[in-house]
Amino acid sequence: MVKVENTKSIAMSDSIINLDHGDPTAYEEYWRKIGDRCTVTIRGCDLMSYFSDVNNLCWFLEPELAEAIKELHGAVGNAATEDRYIVVGTGSTQLCQAAVHALSLLAGGTEPVSVVAAAPYYSTYVEETTYVRSGMYKWEGDAWRFNKKGPFIELVTSPNNPDGTIRETVVNRPDDDEAKVIHDFAYYWPHYTPITRCQDHDIMLFTFSKITGHAGSRIGWALVKDKEVAKKMVEYIIVNSIGVSKESQVRTAKILKVLKETCASETENFFEYGREMMKNRWEGLREVVKESDFTLPKYPEGYCNFFGKTLESYPAFAWLGTKEETDLVNDLRRQKVMSRAGERCGSDKKHVRVSMLSREDVFNVFLERLANMKLIKSIDL
Amino acid sequence: MVKVENTKSIAMSDSIINLDHGDPTAYEEYWRKIGDRCTVTIRGCDLMSYFSDVNNLCWFLEPELAEAIKELHGAVGNAATEDRYIVVGTGSTQLCQAAVHALSLLAGGTEPVSVVAAAPYYSTYVEETTYVRSGMYKWEGDAWRFNKKGPFIELVTSPNNPDGTIRETVVNRPDDDEAKVIHDFAYYWPHYTPITRCQDHDIMLFTFSKITGHAGSRIGWALVKDKEVAKKMVEYIIVNSIGVSKESQVRTAKILKVLKETCASETENFFEYGREMMKNRWEGLREVVKESDFTLPKYPEGYCNFFGKTLESYPAFAWLGTKEETDLVNDLRRQKVMSRAGERCGSDKKHVRVSMLSREDVFNVFLERLANMKLIKSIDL
Repeated sequence: MVKVENTKSIAMSDSIINLDHGDPTAYEEYWRKIGDRCTVTIRGCDLMSYFSDVNNLCWFLEPELAEAIKELHGAVGNAATEDRYIVVGTGSTQLCQAAVHALSLLAGGTEPVSVVAAAPYYSTYVEETTYVRSGMYKWEGDAWRFNKKGPFIELVTSPNNPDGTIRETVVNRPDDDEAKVIHDFAYYWPHYTPITRCQDHDIMLFTFSKITGHAGSRIGWALVKDKEVAKKMVEYIIVNSIGVSKESQVRTAKILKVLKETCASETENFFEYGREMMKNRWEGLREVVKESDFTLPKYPEGYCNFFGKTLESYPAFAWLGTKEETDLVNDLRRQKVMSRAGERCGSDKKHVRVSMLSREDVFNVFLERLANMKLIKSIDL
Repeated sequence: MVKVENTKSIAMSDSIINLDHGDPTAYEEYWRKIGDRCTVTIRGCDLMSYFSDVNNLCWFLEPELAEAIKELHGAVGNAATEDRYIVVGTGSTQLCQAAVHALSLLAGGTEPVSVVAAAPYYSTYVEETTYVRSGMYKWEGDAWRFNKKGPFIELVTSPNNPDGTIRETVVNRPDDDEAKVIHDFAYYWPHYTPITRCQDHDIMLFTFSKITGHAGSRIGWALVKDKEVAKKMVEYIIVNSIGVSKESQVRTAKILKVLKETCASETENFFEYGREMMKNRWEGLREVVKESDFTLPKYPEGYCNFFGKTLESYPAFAWLGTKEETDLVNDLRRQKVMSRAGERCGSDKKHVRVSMLSREDVFNVFLERLANMKLIKSIDL
């Protein structure tokens, strides 16, 4: 049942809604309710130095943020932090580039290292690996079709952006020393997907944006096993931006700490709140899509170690398809809904990526317009 | 007269002091005295979106920061802001790379665009323009020796890092459309140098770090005349880090606003405070260097429009030289003083760059050790 409940969305009924980017404003309401516990106060004389901890390999990482990251992963059980280096970045975007840079440098060859990801993939990977026209690495597209010799890096996003599936590597060269993998776990959190195991890979990327919705802070972190890789990533970030905003780091530390505390709460558990919200949105979307030409992926249930029960997946993006031979991104644009073209993600015109993390009123307008498209199509027939 | 007054510096007498980087912790004391007026408070639900102002070309720039930047330049009179685009960056480091990227892209050729700077130059320019091995641009070193045909970018830092001199372009091709210039005005502020004119160039870079000492915030801005250049710079920053920390931006806005207010104050004028501190340090340093084999540049006086009188220059770095045939960076290292080798700045072994912006006790230990070197040398003779 599609409900448009508030005046704001009615006022919005004529304007374009942008669900192309994944601006995660859905969680604002939760943090408003949490109130002062997440408020940070920074004095004029605080946080002035470039340095956070001169004894840490990643000397621009605030110790309280490192601590909060380890505690949160410990409480959620989604990733191992022992015997790893934590590298902080200006979002996981900067860290992904730092990791590709580090691995390419350590490959040591004269030819560019191939970079691949299984389609459909996060379209930004293409831009990230091509925009500076580096001689160190080269975007080679869809990992399913990759068969070049020599060193390569596979980007594995799980749950996947854009289609929400659980992913493993697809280039199968287990004994190949030249095969490197970067795991992007931006969405491996219990509001989106069952936490079925504690991840334990060589390079794992996380981002503050998609956990709590604080995209404006531009904070990400990498958990890195190998010291040389961590060192080269840090060197990249030093030249790229001489470290990472201290204000964002201390605020992230505070919010992650509160987030971790809520994990033990019956009434305030953020992941419970997030899961409930995502469940409602997905149910609303599936209701509209039902008995139409639109398609959505189906996800298997899984036992979630965090919640202690079997749960569904509610990805942060909907990978919306259509059975018709049409250009879906244009069809939606005509209904004033901006989405990301499937082609940009290495897929086809019949698919688009739609953010599920907009503000509630925007999401409701989206459902309304999608329902309207369905209605028009049924009349056409 | 060299004085080591406090116990902290005596405790420090055995440890290595690092004056290689320019960590501007010298100003902490001032901001401590300013007290609560610069304190920012950020709630958990604030600043969550990627977007600051969807109607601005630089949509990740907080409007209050844009306002504070314009007001400060207006009060100081060091740069024109009218009819320009403001692009915010994660430090001016990211902006310099964004500008080189934008200009190279707009040059539109297939060959890499040459990038040059007159020696001695900021050593980081070398790293910034080489580390990703871009095919778009190529570091060609000392601008004084540059005579290659084709498009090029000259980086002009004024006052110059490392040697504090006032700079103009040195590659003289005034009618050449392929000649582009990026002006780095990190140190064009009245505590370091007389403000003799309101700068009005195509691309001007500024950094929060060196004005007030807030290096940890990683905030810089560019004032850009040409819309296409600004647009390409913004695109670079989107792919590089999807914008810039909002927390740092709102804090910078607040501090710049207070800074601007102090410009009208008799007792709290930050630039007056900074100039007095720098004057004392430079006098202390010149006293030690006097009648020794060490050398320091001499700077002409200039009429400062901000202070309304003729003033000396007190650069943020000392470009220390020696008349002896020796490796000065090693000589200093033996005295447990870390400095930046002149060779890294396109100069020679007989010069080093020494930060003048350390905490007071560290600076005093530096003077003590330099006096000691002078003494040892006089005994040697």
